[in-house]
Amino acid sequence: MIRKVLIANRGEIALRVLRACRELGVPAVVAYSEADRESLPVRLADEAICIGPAPAERSYNHIPAIISAAVVTGCDALHPGYGFLAENALLAEICEECGITFIGPRPQTLRALGDKAEARRLMQRAGLPIVPGSETPVRDASEARRIARKLGYPVLVKAAAGGGGRGMRIVREERELATALQVAQQEAQAAFGDPSVYLERYLERPRHVEVQILADQHGNIVAVGERDCSIQRRYQKLIEEAPAPDLSARVRDALHEAAVRGARAVGYVGAGTFEFLVDREGHFYFTEANARLQVEHPVTEAVTGLDLVQWQLAIAAGERLALRERDLAPRGHAIEVRVTAEDPDRDFAPRPGRIEQLVWPGGPGIRVDSHAYAGYVVPPHYDSLLGKVIAWGLDRAQAIERLDRALRETIIDGVPTPIPLLRRILQHPDFRASRHTTTFLAEYLASQQS
Amino acid sequence: MIRKVLIANRGEIALRVLRACRELGVPAVVAYSEADRESLPVRLADEAICIGPAPAERSYNHIPAIISAAVVTGCDALHPGYGFLAENALLAEICEECGITFIGPRPQTLRALGDKAEARRLMQRAGLPIVPGSETPVRDASEARRIARKLGYPVLVKAAAGGGGRGMRIVREERELATALQVAQQEAQAAFGDPSVYLERYLERPRHVEVQILADQHGNIVAVGERDCSIQRRYQKLIEEAPAPDLSARVRDALHEAAVRGARAVGYVGAGTFEFLVDREGHFYFTEANARLQVEHPVTEAVTGLDLVQWQLAIAAGERLALRERDLAPRGHAIEVRVTAEDPDRDFAPRPGRIEQLVWPGGPGIRVDSHAYAGYVVPPHYDSLLGKVIAWGLDRAQAIERLDRALRETIIDGVPTPIPLLRRILQHPDFRASRHTTTFLAEYLASQQS
Repeated sequence: MIRKVLIANRGEIALRVLRACRELGVPAVVAYSEADRESLPVRLADEAICIGPAPAERSYNHIPAIISAAVVTGCDALHPGYGFLAENALLAEICEECGITFIGPRPQTLRALGDKAEARRLMQRAGLPIVPGSETPVRDASEARRIARKLGYPVLVKAAAGGGGRGMRIVREERELATALQVAQQEAQAAFGDPSVYLERYLERPRHVEVQILADQHGNIVAVGERDCSIQRRYQKLIEEAPAPDLSARVRDALHEAAVRGARAVGYVGAGTFEFLVDREGHFYFTEANARLQVEHPVTEAVTGLDLVQWQLAIAAGERLALRERDLAPRGHAIEVRVTAEDPDRDFAPRPGRIEQLVWPGGPGIRVDSHAYAGYVVPPHYDSLLGKVIAWGLDRAQAIERLDRALRETIIDGVPTPIPLLRRILQHPDFRASRHTTTFLAEYLASQQS
Repeated sequence: MIRKVLIANRGEIALRVLRACRELGVPAVVAYSEADRESLPVRLADEAICIGPAPAERSYNHIPAIISAAVVTGCDALHPGYGFLAENALLAEICEECGITFIGPRPQTLRALGDKAEARRLMQRAGLPIVPGSETPVRDASEARRIARKLGYPVLVKAAAGGGGRGMRIVREERELATALQVAQQEAQAAFGDPSVYLERYLERPRHVEVQILADQHGNIVAVGERDCSIQRRYQKLIEEAPAPDLSARVRDALHEAAVRGARAVGYVGAGTFEFLVDREGHFYFTEANARLQVEHPVTEAVTGLDLVQWQLAIAAGERLALRERDLAPRGHAIEVRVTAEDPDRDFAPRPGRIEQLVWPGGPGIRVDSHAYAGYVVPPHYDSLLGKVIAWGLDRAQAIERLDRALRETIIDGVPTPIPLLRRILQHPDFRASRHTTTFLAEYLASQQS
């Protein structure tokens, strides 16, 4: 049993968790930074506690402040949301020591999956396919050449400590390899203080498909369908959908099975996501596991009817997963867009500021998750997500029409948003025909500029 | 095929129809009165046309203004929404003459169902059970006594031309009958210019259960589930849900079958609702048919996934109903509340005015249909509906929790609303246990006052 939950996060996800707690009748406390005093989750909370000033390292990323907030307010559980400390093994460990239930995987699971190279090795051992590549950092150009010939061009040079596209280079021919290696090592050193780079086979135009799993404390693990999140900009997802379009039943089942196997290998407990790249032939490769709730979880909720956050709480309270196959079968199709305070015409630069007018869409099939309102001032300290609009339809075509209709009726004055771009993507023949891959957005943006 | 639709209505239903048109890719024109210039459907419309000043008889109820608007804007179809002229046979007829597709039943159907006494006779002939009563107006007290004895007390004295509870008296014993008859006749004369009254057996604590039907132009008629709308105040529905709780499969099937039979008897085409009273033993009685879209249609949409307004358009365009049984099976449970600008502490007096702040709820399972926004001025000329909040859950308990959570997070400043009362009803043990009947609200309000 959970008696009271500290919500150690902000923005739309803090409100999302608050909603789940309320529907379960569990009191919740919203922990907030000084900059978030006026956001909707704080205004709506039963109880809220300030955990410090705006910079995340002094509030949302500050473990002592968060633990103190939980203790002071008498919380016996903590929901970390996503981002910030959501996958922090140390926080999970300290929670455990303080008798606070961390609503997420065990510390050792967080640790194993947090090291991306370690996670790849673990999953490979568990039998999951991974993108072929060097197993240790490459030492020099001649070793790189040897490995690249074995993998076959194009190859990807990738920072070992990396993420977010930094320290990463695509090499299409052997004569480009030495230079690319050097540049990537320099970038990796500058960005992460570690020049180590790997080689990996570069997949041309893959799909990003991720499997949602739920795992209880009693060894029951289920795949709650998958999502396609191929519309990305520099690894930032913009549009996500469930189920993944254009997947054969064989590949879908194999993906689900792989995710469950991977979760079992790390003793996974809670809600989590296993990410894969899928090529045109239906070969798929594990890339990473996210040991938390994802931003895009609502599309899975829309097609299954399940409340993933309520399941997180139930699992943390020791309940058994009592889901039958028919509870997991998707019904219809759902698509989410992320609406941010960003200017797509200026390379998606964040644009905090006051929202003068805000009218979210409504009507059939539309769900909105947002912490903003008319008059809300978007603080400059955090990511620029204003909210998510999720459309459900009987099929993918209806979900697209509804989402486009919903974005068309959304009124946001005061900050720029990528809504016009999102609508152009939704209307694009390649997206409509499910021909889009992870390179779609970069290519589309490049074509718009020329 | 429909090329362009005139939306001849206002408020949330105008926006609802606009949304359906947009999702189908059909251009739409919103016809609006001067008082509605700033409402959301007008602001969002592709095209809007002013049809006159605020009083409904000079705009929304003014057939020549509406027909002119359709002609001037090149519309070949007209959606009347609900209320105003939605069930007006003359409008449907004139549309037909002008080559405009009226999105609703045929004129003769509207005429037959519009006369409530005629509709009862028609349905009785079609084999639907009706509440036992006098078949013609009662002439005097002695005839009334004779009929009342046959029906058994309590009986209801009811104005023939009536509606909305006026000219209506419950009589529990014979000695009250003569006075009640006289008072009802006087009220009926004053309210409707016609003193005729009927007698009917009075049902103690019935449920209001209505069946949604869809009928195409080719003779296909289906029942799209039913709704319980027993939470009423003077015949005004406040809370509606689908499916109806606490109905046996036998009674449910019989209700559906009766509605389809009734629709067939009047050559019904389009979306419509057959209303019944259901007593504790599961006996049910036809009361009236509503030849239009209902305010509460979203709960049916939430559990079936169907878009009833899109079906209205498809049927009007001549499409065939291609719905299989599994398309109609409800999934989960949905409940709607009507949020009005009314003061429940002052007998629900309408309170138009400026909405200073407005934050509708969101998150999983919540749909909002509203034409209002922060800064919107609710005009004094029309009904006071601000919007509808609809919650879906895997079961009734979850739908209730979600709706209560949603109402708790709704922020409306500037006008009073019945949200606190709605929440108390949702939390009431009788409502939670589905023990409520059409008398629940009156009894509850009376108990609060004492």
